[in-house]
Amino acid sequence: MHNTQWEKWQKEMELWLDKALPEADVPQKSVFTAMRYSLLGGGKRIRPMLVLEFCRLCGGQPEAAVPFACAVEMIHTYSLIHDDLPCMDNADLRRGRPSNHKVFGEAAALLAGDGLLTAAFETMLSEDALRLAGADRAARAAGILARAAGAYGMVGGQVLDLAAEGQKASLEYLQQMDSRKTGALIVACAQMGCAIAGADDEKMEAAGRYAAALGLAFQIQDDILDVTSTAEELGKTVGGDVQNEKSTYVSLLGLQKARQQVQALTQKAKDALAVFGEQADTLCDLADSLACRAK
Amino acid sequence: MHNTQWEKWQKEMELWLDKALPEADVPQKSVFTAMRYSLLGGGKRIRPMLVLEFCRLCGGQPEAAVPFACAVEMIHTYSLIHDDLPCMDNADLRRGRPSNHKVFGEAAALLAGDGLLTAAFETMLSEDALRLAGADRAARAAGILARAAGAYGMVGGQVLDLAAEGQKASLEYLQQMDSRKTGALIVACAQMGCAIAGADDEKMEAAGRYAAALGLAFQIQDDILDVTSTAEELGKTVGGDVQNEKSTYVSLLGLQKARQQVQALTQKAKDALAVFGEQADTLCDLADSLACRAK
Repeated sequence: MHNTQWEKWQKEMELWLDKALPEADVPQKSVFTAMRYSLLGGGKRIRPMLVLEFCRLCGGQPEAAVPFACAVEMIHTYSLIHDDLPCMDNADLRRGRPSNHKVFGEAAALLAGDGLLTAAFETMLSEDALRLAGADRAARAAGILARAAGAYGMVGGQVLDLAAEGQKASLEYLQQMDSRKTGALIVACAQMGCAIAGADDEKMEAAGRYAAALGLAFQIQDDILDVTSTAEELGKTVGGDVQNEKSTYVSLLGLQKARQQVQALTQKAKDALAVFGEQADTLCDLADSLACRAK
Repeated sequence: MHNTQWEKWQKEMELWLDKALPEADVPQKSVFTAMRYSLLGGGKRIRPMLVLEFCRLCGGQPEAAVPFACAVEMIHTYSLIHDDLPCMDNADLRRGRPSNHKVFGEAAALLAGDGLLTAAFETMLSEDALRLAGADRAARAAGILARAAGAYGMVGGQVLDLAAEGQKASLEYLQQMDSRKTGALIVACAQMGCAIAGADDEKMEAAGRYAAALGLAFQIQDDILDVTSTAEELGKTVGGDVQNEKSTYVSLLGLQKARQQVQALTQKAKDALAVFGEQADTLCDLADSLACRAK
């Protein structure tokens, strides 16, 4: 992504996250170390950017959106920590580094995840956050995130993912799972930004449409890259991957149709931005660059 | 407890919790089953009662406090589910029934806990909750709970508990741990009730003093009952328990001094109620009955 606004915020996000969850001089400081290890461990920061950019686009003060941008990244990070635990995906690596439980142990990682999920709400409901955004808008935005992260949203998606393990899922199942597991949080980001700015229902709805299309395009592109990078690395044919145990958009649609879907969804995302006028360039660029990304 | 107000709310709490987290007709409904298994699995419901009673005592509408009372019980329940997991206490039983992960499996129990923690905020930040309590008071009360449940509070206490495993803790360490692990949430309950009613700082502070004393008295009484019931059951001397691996108030203070502490803390709790006038009878009775309880 070569957008200036984007790069500026990406840098600032690192500072904001560091400030939102500082090392604490308390007897239980080890949990802060574990939380910060994963929170400050890099990542594209797409979710917080959506909060900030939609707030700006709707005429709000980005500073007011910062606690909510940080909160989204805390929730995303907690989900990765819990997802990596031995009883879930049992993953040793995350973002090129040892996963949280590999470094701090299983119990500490469980608690670091619990701590981050809770810290998201501490951050959004802090006195500063309420003052900057106004209690009404802050409560509304925090409610949007809670619903997206919970059993109807992200947690529910994880449950569907577990249930599908070792089975071939249908395209409909895959879409239901992804719309909860990753889509709900991305939609929430866009709508939280609108809520902080006090945007009307039309903009909230358009923001949701943009984010839903973007999120699904991202997921399909992930599946495409998984296949194409595997093909390059291992010399496997694409046809071999279709026989994988786990269903993907590529295994269900084929590579060509999957690519068409990414293009169509990216266009759909960009179309949804019409209501925001010319200022929506940054979000347009984001959709394009995610569709073209090679990693 | 033979207080009418108390018994009335205890019964209503079961209905309110059932309504706050209904079975959901969604593909991931299994997670709701697991969440409800533990949430509706009984318990004294002391925490939600504190929310309701302090709200009433400060002149607020108890109906406005109901979502917050439910939220506290959701957070308490999630902490029990995660605490029972194999990587933590590895407990097979809870409240006389198989623990959540024994029934639903480890991954499902992890997600049920995550779902309950999130559901607490979904409940407090729902449109109904914001309308009944007002967004300002609701956001304030939800913020109190978030801070009490997080890494500075309950999660932090769990971390201290883990760190002390297999070691003899000092009295100071034990108090620091308990004030976070159980005390913080109990204090939050009292203060949330006040916040929903829009009480002033003097009442918030008095409510916090009452709850902190009550919580510590409860913990010490737990340790006393652990010793005395063991003595009756196994014919062990009290002196034998003092040599246990894990430090308790009884092992550190001795049984007599521990009993004196319970009495002193109960008096302290009752003294803190002065500012609330005669209406504080129910909370007075609660302190007395917890100090005298035999189980």
